[in-house]
Amino acid sequence: MSTFVLVHGAWHDGSAWKAVIQHLEAKGHQAFAPTIAGHGKGVNKNVNHAQCTQSVVDYIVDKDLTDIVLLGHSFGGTIVAKAAEAIPERIRRLIFFATFIPNDGNSLSDSLPSQSQQLMKQLAEESDDNTVMIPFDRWHKVMINDADLELAKSTYAQLSSEPYQPFIDKLDLKQFYSLHTPKSYLYCSEETALPQDEIGLHPRMSNRLGLFRFVQMPGSHEVMFSNPVGLAEKIIVAGRD
Amino acid sequence: MSTFVLVHGAWHDGSAWKAVIQHLEAKGHQAFAPTIAGHGKGVNKNVNHAQCTQSVVDYIVDKDLTDIVLLGHSFGGTIVAKAAEAIPERIRRLIFFATFIPNDGNSLSDSLPSQSQQLMKQLAEESDDNTVMIPFDRWHKVMINDADLELAKSTYAQLSSEPYQPFIDKLDLKQFYSLHTPKSYLYCSEETALPQDEIGLHPRMSNRLGLFRFVQMPGSHEVMFSNPVGLAEKIIVAGRD
Amino acid sequence: MSTFVLVHGAWHDGSAWKAVIQHLEAKGHQAFAPTIAGHGKGVNKNVNHAQCTQSVVDYIVDKDLTDIVLLGHSFGGTIVAKAAEAIPERIRRLIFFATFIPNDGNSLSDSLPSQSQQLMKQLAEESDDNTVMIPFDRWHKVMINDADLELAKSTYAQLSSEPYQPFIDKLDLKQFYSLHTPKSYLYCSEETALPQDEIGLHPRMSNRLGLFRFVQMPGSHEVMFSNPVGLAEKIIVAGRD
Repeated sequence: MSTFVLVHGAWHDGSAWKAVIQHLEAKGHQAFAPTIAGHGKGVNKNVNHAQCTQSVVDYIVDKDLTDIVLLGHSFGGTIVAKAAEAIPERIRRLIFFATFIPNDGNSLSDSLPSQSQQLMKQLAEESDDNTVMIPFDRWHKVMINDADLELAKSTYAQLSSEPYQPFIDKLDLKQFYSLHTPKSYLYCSEETALPQDEIGLHPRMSNRLGLFRFVQMPGSHEVMFSNPVGLAEKIIVAGRD
Repeated sequence: MSTFVLVHGAWHDGSAWKAVIQHLEAKGHQAFAPTIAGHGKGVNKNVNHAQCTQSVVDYIVDKDLTDIVLLGHSFGGTIVAKAAEAIPERIRRLIFFATFIPNDGNSLSDSLPSQSQQLMKQLAEESDDNTVMIPFDRWHKVMINDADLELAKSTYAQLSSEPYQPFIDKLDLKQFYSLHTPKSYLYCSEETALPQDEIGLHPRMSNRLGLFRFVQMPGSHEVMFSNPVGLAEKIIVAGRD
Repeated sequence: MSTFVLVHGAWHDGSAWKAVIQHLEAKGHQAFAPTIAGHGKGVNKNVNHAQCTQSVVDYIVDKDLTDIVLLGHSFGGTIVAKAAEAIPERIRRLIFFATFIPNDGNSLSDSLPSQSQQLMKQLAEESDDNTVMIPFDRWHKVMINDADLELAKSTYAQLSSEPYQPFIDKLDLKQFYSLHTPKSYLYCSEETALPQDEIGLHPRMSNRLGLFRFVQMPGSHEVMFSNPVGLAEKIIVAGRD
């Protein structure tokens, strides 16, 4: 039985994993879902990437979780990469679930197509607190494209605006890229969060991991909402030794 | 419950959708399948792209269909794109099912690899009525690769020669590309109708839609024959709000 | 009912197909699985590509197998391509299952990314018999990524070191590329045996076949171990007329 720590992506908070955790627990595993600093509703959004990472590291250390399978989703991949540098001895395996994995010295934004970079920048500048909110239309069309309108709406209601600073902070990842922690990349075959004019998150991002275990399932970028049981099953497969 | 209008591709006529329509109706939807002008057996094949489009528009207007989900398959994608320019007020959503989507000012043929362009041209010149017939070998190998020999033969018997002119007519699509009609792209994961030396219809064609809902299912280019129930289910998912 | 001859890939011997053959036979087919010369445990590994091919040809001729569906897996694809040149009259269809298909005049190694070429060369030079053994870590991570640790270990125990010479022998494939034997390419959607920085075995290799039937299933490069029943079902689909 494994101990999973599930780190959410942009616009989400830890509650995104509720149904997934229920299924992991039903299968006899332990699972935790911290909310990254500056994320969730009604909180101070003025955070940088280091503070985001520190909040997840603190959560793990405070609970004294060890031998964990640490999963990051989307933006959360950059958090677990940096957290793995801070507490490698607590981590049995890393799962990158449809994540960005910046090259050393780059920000997450540097991995985006230039059009997406511009869109994020513009939305942040138009906000009054340097955050970005995804429009509902885009949410339903390219993020949760396997959901009906009702599910798209109910999940959108759970989102909150995303701090922009962590997207543009340059990340020193030299230590991460030298870690020998086993790694898995989990991907959904109807993923369209990024324009697919070239190649998608897999293999564009996943190949930066060197040797890794590839696990795939049907679904969109947001299967924690559209298919939480199926996702939990694949997390177990991605997380096993 | 939705009203679907299903527009067939090259070599087909409206009867190709028979089994799909049965399942859509069993699920409570309405579905119509016009035969494009110049298509089907025993008809005058001397048509251009504008006449093909007009025949579908006339069908929809004559039946006074409104609030429709308009689907085009393969070549039919170019027809629904032009039809959407003519009667946007009747269309709730467009589904592009393994379609070509020419750039503004281009013909369908311009989207083909040069080898396929040459093959089409040559076959048309060798015909006595400027049409192209797909050889059975190619039909079974790359179009309906998920069918056994019996199904490949019985479906081939339903095909008829395809007018060549609509493939080379240059299409003014400026208006189409400015429409705000919601769009879905439906794709089959064993699609090999086009040589896959670079990237396939998805994402090569689909990305021209801008933001769209991506839906995928297993199967070949011709799942209306090899898996009509599965296709109907995915058409419902692609067509919902 | 068909007669299948299943030709294994690198590090394997004919016993790799045991569970697949059981299922093929349960479905009423005949299936044979020769061990390629220089493969398997406790044998002389000093073979070249021509000797490998000859051993499979001899097996088929000695048993007087005719009207066969000849399948090659991975490295085995280069063997069945050359065997098809030698005994085309005995072969009803060729199935290339996640195989390399060298261009005429090239070796298998020429189709590898340069990093993989270097790794193979280095491992061969470090051996005392010009062979290459895949490390367990790589086996589990990228070859049988859909297996749990127990299955990864038990299957690894069945492997033996691979003769290097057949990987670098230049292959005259002019005759192969002129054969009209029907061809299928069978592929698994979680295949990661090769780095996927560009495009994978499909379509990079498969497109060299010209017109071919494409068949796909979920799983890793080693589904004969992780999903033998599912593989047998897809072999039947790939092998039918």
